[in-house]
Amino acid sequence: MSEATAVAAQPEKAFGVWSPAMTPLDADLQIDTARAIDHIQRLLAAGCHGIVLFGTTGEANSFSVAERQGLLDAVLAAGVAPGQLMVGNGCCALSDTLALTRHALEAGCGSVLMLPPFYYKGLSDEALYRSFAEVVDRIGDADLLVYFYHFPKLSAAPITHAVIARLLAAYPGIFAGLKDSSGDAEGCAAFIESFPEMAIFPGTELFMLDMLKKGGAGTITASANVNPTAIRRVYDAWTGGSGDVEALQAQISAVRKVLQAKPTIPGLKETVARQRNDPAWRHMRPPMVDLSAEEADSLARELDQAGFAFSV
Amino acid sequence: MSEATAVAAQPEKAFGVWSPAMTPLDADLQIDTARAIDHIQRLLAAGCHGIVLFGTTGEANSFSVAERQGLLDAVLAAGVAPGQLMVGNGCCALSDTLALTRHALEAGCGSVLMLPPFYYKGLSDEALYRSFAEVVDRIGDADLLVYFYHFPKLSAAPITHAVIARLLAAYPGIFAGLKDSSGDAEGCAAFIESFPEMAIFPGTELFMLDMLKKGGAGTITASANVNPTAIRRVYDAWTGGSGDVEALQAQISAVRKVLQAKPTIPGLKETVARQRNDPAWRHMRPPMVDLSAEEADSLARELDQAGFAFSV
Repeated sequence: MSEATAVAAQPEKAFGVWSPAMTPLDADLQIDTARAIDHIQRLLAAGCHGIVLFGTTGEANSFSVAERQGLLDAVLAAGVAPGQLMVGNGCCALSDTLALTRHALEAGCGSVLMLPPFYYKGLSDEALYRSFAEVVDRIGDADLLVYFYHFPKLSAAPITHAVIARLLAAYPGIFAGLKDSSGDAEGCAAFIESFPEMAIFPGTELFMLDMLKKGGAGTITASANVNPTAIRRVYDAWTGGSGDVEALQAQISAVRKVLQAKPTIPGLKETVARQRNDPAWRHMRPPMVDLSAEEADSLARELDQAGFAFSV
Repeated sequence: MSEATAVAAQPEKAFGVWSPAMTPLDADLQIDTARAIDHIQRLLAAGCHGIVLFGTTGEANSFSVAERQGLLDAVLAAGVAPGQLMVGNGCCALSDTLALTRHALEAGCGSVLMLPPFYYKGLSDEALYRSFAEVVDRIGDADLLVYFYHFPKLSAAPITHAVIARLLAAYPGIFAGLKDSSGDAEGCAAFIESFPEMAIFPGTELFMLDMLKKGGAGTITASANVNPTAIRRVYDAWTGGSGDVEALQAQISAVRKVLQAKPTIPGLKETVARQRNDPAWRHMRPPMVDLSAEEADSLARELDQAGFAFSV
């Protein structure tokens, strides 16, 4: 292989607006595959650069390995390109993480969004390092492209700069980026500054534009399940399109603030149910609890006041 | 069936000293089935009333459903009686919890120690209630006997009195007890006072005797992996055996304090490795990290000073 070919074969790092797609359920609380595929295809058509399959908003950890693998297979069979997907793969059990990672790679999806193991708390940097390194070692596949999933509030295992630096040095070409779901803009800016070789995605569009200005990659945000087009418009305005980018950002931020003031996943499912006039979107697998009628009504009213277009 | 028979068929609630058995690994970090069986048989011979298979100390969440089912099958095949086991079954995914619960019941193990789903944080009482109720409803088997696993530091989902009361009322005969791993003696006493119909086990022997005096059931404690005989002696002295129960309690508390000052699971595995002169016990699956040589030496020294007999 010529050097030029080798360079060309380097996988592209992700950028833009990604939606961690929600997972619709049927009345028996099983994954509703047809609705899930329809949802993903709508999000891509509405402007998402890509889809995270089984992130936190997709309730990844509420499904078995087999359920997760089954949906990935179905989504690919429906014609979604592997390059449009990033697959959540980080579980508490090393064996589960390996199974999901191998399956994704075999399906052509080398990009994974990886939570550290999240049951034991207070992990040392050494524990965190080993958790990632053991997976990379055992997978042993140069097509693997890992995005760190930094979500301290839920994983209770913040991914430190020291661990990232050590992994980048030990496994060149494997660790491609990071989703920062801390909600902390300063911390996100610090990741961008410290690791310019990585694609850093804030896990909220609230400060997407601020981070784009610093070199951020875009956003991977739950709200892109319901507001993808407007979020994409901000990204495009920044990267050379038309429109008042600050005003567009203010608009998506107003919608986001309404969404995150409610229980996020139930609120987003309620919003999709209203957008599509499809009550099936309200099915919840525990520990998720559907919104009360009052919560649902106030959410709809507040979204409307924030300029959110339910009909899109 | 006569009424007398129906009463006799009521399952006995657990009591006494239970060890949440550690899970030994081979050099490839797979479960070492032979060592696991040997360990469990030794613990029972050394005085444990029973074994929790796949509690926190057994690194339950670090293994796949299939790995967990495989070890349960092997332990039963080796002759351990189902009644001597309580099986950890609570996962983040409803589907995983159901698979483990059904498998345990089919194997004759109706007693399960159930963590609530532990990825999403800040669960409401309604979320917690539904998480337990959904499992009981779907299992639909009167042989099921659920022990709540209250471990707020790791699950981040404290089990509240209101949820327990609601579940006891909704499912009579199903919720049999609670393991309180909060480390909070006052909270443990409050569970005993509020729910006299349940077997309440402090998750530490530090206040086993104090809780026995209030009506506690015994203890389910990690330290019983290395110090079962001495802990059993306290239980027996309280329930009518011989010996100065306060002095015996002081002795096991001294050992416990040394153990819990180190990373608990690596420290316990190190201790078993020394007890049995069996270095294989030091294999760790991430995120566990083996003790450094200095940590291991200081642990051994401090245990010795606390009167712990390595040769038992």
